[in-house]
Amino acid sequence: MYSFANDYSEGCAAPILEALVKHNYEQSVGYGLDDHCKNAAALIRKEIGRDDLDVHFIPGGTPANILGIVSALKPYEAVICADSGHINVHETGSIEATGHKILSAPGVNGKITPAEIEDFCVNRMEEHTVYPKMVFVSDATEYGTIYTKKELSDIAAMCKKHGLYLYLDGARIGSALVAKGNDMTLADIAELTDMFYIGGTKNGALLGEAMVIRNEELKKGFRYHLKQRGAMLAKGAVMGIAFEELFKDGLYFRLAKNANLMAMSLKEIFKRYDIPFFMETTTNQIFPILPDTLLKKIEEKYTVTFWEKYDETHSVVRFVCSWATQKEALIDFYKDFSQMVKENDR
Amino acid sequence: MYSFANDYSEGCAAPILEALVKHNYEQSVGYGLDDHCKNAAALIRKEIGRDDLDVHFIPGGTPANILGIVSALKPYEAVICADSGHINVHETGSIEATGHKILSAPGVNGKITPAEIEDFCVNRMEEHTVYPKMVFVSDATEYGTIYTKKELSDIAAMCKKHGLYLYLDGARIGSALVAKGNDMTLADIAELTDMFYIGGTKNGALLGEAMVIRNEELKKGFRYHLKQRGAMLAKGAVMGIAFEELFKDGLYFRLAKNANLMAMSLKEIFKRYDIPFFMETTTNQIFPILPDTLLKKIEEKYTVTFWEKYDETHSVVRFVCSWATQKEALIDFYKDFSQMVKENDR
Amino acid sequence: MYSFANDYSEGCAAPILEALVKHNYEQSVGYGLDDHCKNAAALIRKEIGRDDLDVHFIPGGTPANILGIVSALKPYEAVICADSGHINVHETGSIEATGHKILSAPGVNGKITPAEIEDFCVNRMEEHTVYPKMVFVSDATEYGTIYTKKELSDIAAMCKKHGLYLYLDGARIGSALVAKGNDMTLADIAELTDMFYIGGTKNGALLGEAMVIRNEELKKGFRYHLKQRGAMLAKGAVMGIAFEELFKDGLYFRLAKNANLMAMSLKEIFKRYDIPFFMETTTNQIFPILPDTLLKKIEEKYTVTFWEKYDETHSVVRFVCSWATQKEALIDFYKDFSQMVKENDR
Amino acid sequence: MYSFANDYSEGCAAPILEALVKHNYEQSVGYGLDDHCKNAAALIRKEIGRDDLDVHFIPGGTPANILGIVSALKPYEAVICADSGHINVHETGSIEATGHKILSAPGVNGKITPAEIEDFCVNRMEEHTVYPKMVFVSDATEYGTIYTKKELSDIAAMCKKHGLYLYLDGARIGSALVAKGNDMTLADIAELTDMFYIGGTKNGALLGEAMVIRNEELKKGFRYHLKQRGAMLAKGAVMGIAFEELFKDGLYFRLAKNANLMAMSLKEIFKRYDIPFFMETTTNQIFPILPDTLLKKIEEKYTVTFWEKYDETHSVVRFVCSWATQKEALIDFYKDFSQMVKENDR
Repeated sequence: MYSFANDYSEGCAAPILEALVKHNYEQSVGYGLDDHCKNAAALIRKEIGRDDLDVHFIPGGTPANILGIVSALKPYEAVICADSGHINVHETGSIEATGHKILSAPGVNGKITPAEIEDFCVNRMEEHTVYPKMVFVSDATEYGTIYTKKELSDIAAMCKKHGLYLYLDGARIGSALVAKGNDMTLADIAELTDMFYIGGTKNGALLGEAMVIRNEELKKGFRYHLKQRGAMLAKGAVMGIAFEELFKDGLYFRLAKNANLMAMSLKEIFKRYDIPFFMETTTNQIFPILPDTLLKKIEEKYTVTFWEKYDETHSVVRFVCSWATQKEALIDFYKDFSQMVKENDR
Repeated sequence: MYSFANDYSEGCAAPILEALVKHNYEQSVGYGLDDHCKNAAALIRKEIGRDDLDVHFIPGGTPANILGIVSALKPYEAVICADSGHINVHETGSIEATGHKILSAPGVNGKITPAEIEDFCVNRMEEHTVYPKMVFVSDATEYGTIYTKKELSDIAAMCKKHGLYLYLDGARIGSALVAKGNDMTLADIAELTDMFYIGGTKNGALLGEAMVIRNEELKKGFRYHLKQRGAMLAKGAVMGIAFEELFKDGLYFRLAKNANLMAMSLKEIFKRYDIPFFMETTTNQIFPILPDTLLKKIEEKYTVTFWEKYDETHSVVRFVCSWATQKEALIDFYKDFSQMVKENDR
Repeated sequence: MYSFANDYSEGCAAPILEALVKHNYEQSVGYGLDDHCKNAAALIRKEIGRDDLDVHFIPGGTPANILGIVSALKPYEAVICADSGHINVHETGSIEATGHKILSAPGVNGKITPAEIEDFCVNRMEEHTVYPKMVFVSDATEYGTIYTKKELSDIAAMCKKHGLYLYLDGARIGSALVAKGNDMTLADIAELTDMFYIGGTKNGALLGEAMVIRNEELKKGFRYHLKQRGAMLAKGAVMGIAFEELFKDGLYFRLAKNANLMAMSLKEIFKRYDIPFFMETTTNQIFPILPDTLLKKIEEKYTVTFWEKYDETHSVVRFVCSWATQKEALIDFYKDFSQMVKENDR
Repeated sequence: MYSFANDYSEGCAAPILEALVKHNYEQSVGYGLDDHCKNAAALIRKEIGRDDLDVHFIPGGTPANILGIVSALKPYEAVICADSGHINVHETGSIEATGHKILSAPGVNGKITPAEIEDFCVNRMEEHTVYPKMVFVSDATEYGTIYTKKELSDIAAMCKKHGLYLYLDGARIGSALVAKGNDMTLADIAELTDMFYIGGTKNGALLGEAMVIRNEELKKGFRYHLKQRGAMLAKGAVMGIAFEELFKDGLYFRLAKNANLMAMSLKEIFKRYDIPFFMETTTNQIFPILPDTLLKKIEEKYTVTFWEKYDETHSVVRFVCSWATQKEALIDFYKDFSQMVKENDR
């Protein structure tokens, strides 16, 4: 069984693995205060091109989102996101478990719109309802789509208008920033948001996300939150080492490019057989709409993710490629798929 | 600078590192459901000698304690521990952040006593006070001391008498179980407690603690809590691989033995200079009482942990050895220390 | 200015006021353990016709809902309600503040449907999402509509099918149970739900709601929750005295009948001028759709609640009548309204 | 059975009852925004002699303490109090339920000391422990003792030194301010603290505490917290009416004087029989140490509160007098007690 189920199936990218081996017997101070973490933070600031950013390393995406939100909001303040937002659907109520309501709206292609944001704010000064104070976006989104600079700028402008913080979940920010159609850089994202994280887990690290805080108001006390929510790793250097490698010479983006390239190649395979797509994406996730009979055959040899029923006889299926996906896997899949289609058509 | 500050300064034990390298490009399902985690859990059950145990892997000690407590208690229920309990002092209020009160008592040498536990329970049926429902102990304790089988059995009996769960924080359980004076096995601990964790981070893993749940009542829904509190690692196999190595042929205990042996050797060095100890320990932590002038000299070459003032001119200092501490480091320290004592005596 | 803004504008019904005066200098034990509370609970059990019900008095609707939910759910469990549910919109995130997610669906006329409930449950066994465990309904709903016995039975059956608790917010249960079209009794509601509350504040009490718990699982520890959430009133007898009066000879339903009768009379006034309604109701809330120009005139003499814009030139407006609304007020309103319509038509 | 168990056994003081009757059929806007609440707030500001105070009415002492703390602290911040502090012992973990740790110290006579406060602060800048940010005191304390102006000023100075908020629980502030030995006014308390509440429930109101906020930082968003925690009463006017009466011509202090006078008279009775006291108090609570045999006799005719065992044969017992205690009750008690002592001495 080969898996296209996600982008965290394998361990870590070779240079990270080598660095872990190389530094294994070094002594580091714990809890993210070591030299690797410091150096990694410096490299991230350099990549972004500004030195007023706080950087913290967090073991995973869910704790990163918990921390981004809980460190910013007062108890009665709420966070706005698209209905499909990861925090709204796939984190087992982790935000609510810290006491905050999520206000969600349909969005378009997984993206919240400025108008939806404004709707939540217009009648906001009333103590019988929560007070919206933050917008949560993901880039790439949960549907594999990306924000253009114009879209994110419009959201940022709306946030400014209503005094909202803008937080970006960058679990797949690498894939987004090297995708066809993207016109943003990390620097743009740092400029437009108050806080965001650069995902490591889904782009070649063994674990770890780099939280980047630009807004001065949100910097204070972050390490207290980190510890309190159980997200301060004793051996923080493991994450520092990974992000040093990822950002010292562009590895982060090279890995993401491989993921996208593989996904786009996979897309081509489906297109040759006129398979339609649920959502047009240019990142490392694609969503073909497959006949259920064909899906069943695929599932005998490949692990993929059933997304939702499309109609009586078809399903939306998610295929994910990653830094670790190799051409050979696609060649094999192409052969298998061709055969399966043929059988299915009989 | 050489560090005796803690037992998580280095990366991981060699066999674990090798296994991580070996399995790096394997595909695993995420979130702790992979074969390495399953196999590691099986090895732990085998080590303990019973097959009715649920095993979950958690990135660190603080999230393990959060989960052990939050998964067991109703909102108005409280956990009892010694004043020095890690959850009471060094986890930034992480337990209270989940809504639960900690009831603490002085204890003896870092160990809560059955009488103290009973005190909290006798007048318990009154809704104006929290309802004590769990006892938290650490073995080894925060002072490096250990529980005897009699002591833990007495606590377990008191818990049974008052309907309390017994939870054991085993961040340093390896060191405790191979310490001079210990008369318990993992099997005893599994028998006497309702839930406990086997610490990996402080005994040779890159990260990870293995939560072991014996009490049927506490098994249900644990993975929901794991996800909700941000402690379900996407690449859970990293921890599975570590625990496979640790438990497949006794590595866990061999590593702990090295930590204790090194600490006891260090103790000998201090004893030769008639340095007294704050607490008599047989595990990998020792607490010499040093003249402040001497401590100052030591701190020029070694990283150690100031524990507390002993008197006007002396301090209690913590030295920790680990699986990674080598004889050579002790030889160097012996030389340096002898010289420092000489200079200090002038 | 006369107010049709709500049903809690005045103090309390005359017999309650008299009883408060009468018992003022009696000594009572505190915290809801007094004889008035006990007697009131007994009267409620008698009204319902079963003796297996726990009854607790709570100062208001928001704390009642907090308690109903927090006492029943585990941290990762969620409550389902209609989008318009009071807990979802008008309680400032009080449920999320206790850690629980609310899952909402559009509903029909303010009422959640069995199909919507089932949708949340079908894929429920997955730890990456919250686990739905309770359904929240209001009768009368936030739109003044009511559940038929068939509707509530269908919901209860769906809850049973999926192991969900059914909780009913009865802030306006009096008005619902005496409304035209209602075919339920308090006994039916106690039978069909696991827990519900009988609203006092909006039906003639100075304050207080009577929480009725039928499901044995949900009874344990309720008073602990009551105290912990700050909802255990020292002088609980104030509420006990009110509910004694309300339930000793049918006062509760007589008060509700007045509220409905007055609202239906008010509706007649609007109908004479062909004013349409946003929602067809038979309880004490009505929702005429008024020309904005006419609304402006009304607001000069009457306090009413703007509900939402209907179109460019019309608004939905809420008028509420209560136990305290008197015929004279309607006669005055009729005169004023006729005049305003006339002026508006010029 | 006559009760000396507490100061909230009866309903409310006569002028409040009369005002409730008088205003019963008035219409008020809900949720504490009515004219009675506004006027009561103005009267309190006038009594204190400053107009920069926010005043909110809250149904009880536990919700008042929850709100005072939760509205001021960030998640990782903690509140310091004496071991005997009401929030630490008698509120069922309500503060922890909002996520905050309580740091407690022994104190002296129920009063925290500046040195104890400083101890918690000196090593505070470390993210592995909670960050103390508030001090909680009660005046009168849970032991019936009071703070002198010097004592409270010293605490306030220590708070200022370490950037802590000072919060005062004034459930029995009336009794404290008219007690022998008191040298403070409400104005002093408003000056020295950041926030405090004036207790109504224990001094003649049917329910209600008046939260007074002086520190500008703590004013923002308070009504959101009020609603979110379920403490915003729909018929807020009930509390506004009470505080209007209490503060329009000194009723508040006259009621408190009666409570103290009665308690001091009761003390005299015990002194005549050489009964010693556990704690020297001048407020409305006294703590005689009674032979258990004598206590048993008393309990046949009077409700009192067992406080704690003093020795093998004696107990500390709490007697409370109130605004409602009448001379006649003391005369009866004197007779009964004399007789009981006589019988007991046989």
